[in-house]
Amino acid sequence: MNNADKLAMVERYVEAFEKSDVEIIRGMYADNAVVEDPVGTEPHRGLDAICAFYQGALGAGAKLRLSGQVRCAGNAVAFPFHVVMPGMQIDVIDVFEFDDNGKISSMKAYWGPDNLRKDG
Amino acid sequence: MNNADKLAMVERYVEAFEKSDVEIIRGMYADNAVVEDPVGTEPHRGLDAICAFYQGALGAGAKLRLSGQVRCAGNAVAFPFHVVMPGMQIDVIDVFEFDDNGKISSMKAYWGPDNLRKDG
Repeated sequence: MNNADKLAMVERYVEAFEKSDVEIIRGMYADNAVVEDPVGTEPHRGLDAICAFYQGALGAGAKLRLSGQVRCAGNAVAFPFHVVMPGMQIDVIDVFEFDDNGKISSMKAYWGPDNLRKDG
Repeated sequence: MNNADKLAMVERYVEAFEKSDVEIIRGMYADNAVVEDPVGTEPHRGLDAICAFYQGALGAGAKLRLSGQVRCAGNAVAFPFHVVMPGMQIDVIDVFEFDDNGKISSMKAYWGPDNLRKDG
């Protein structure tokens, strides 16, 4: 998987939130993928659990705004962004690891209470 | 380890580069720590190998400039920064994992050729 493909995956991820389309998310993850969001909480394992988790965020109207370069390294990408929701914003760093089929096998989201900002 | 302690570790890390002091780095890592920089390359295992690796970067005059919030999550922190060296700059995201003694047990640095910028 080359870096252009990895960057395209991050763009598609942003698009999934823009369109509130969980089917885009479903197409990006491996069947047995693991999502830990935020790191330190119980992971979501497998496509159905993962899609149910994302459906919550998409239903809340969350949008993503990249806040720096996407870093491609090995079989992974890391990128900083803001999650923008009605009345609040969270600064997050996501790390995706990809499998040999170009699907996300692992996602870890780094954020905590200090990264949450209430607007208005 | 609370979030204030984690933030202090990131500040100390920046300070180690500011002072080009590898002994600060030595004091931050666990004996059996693993450093993968960038992710996808052969890791440096154990304090001596890790300090030898950092000595190279410090000797090259590298300084760190945070470029966004530090994200604390679980036993980890992730943070975006620029590595500034004579004639070039690299956009990096580091992830530290801490052990029960408040030392770094794992460091992963995410960056690639696309994140390197030559100045002048």
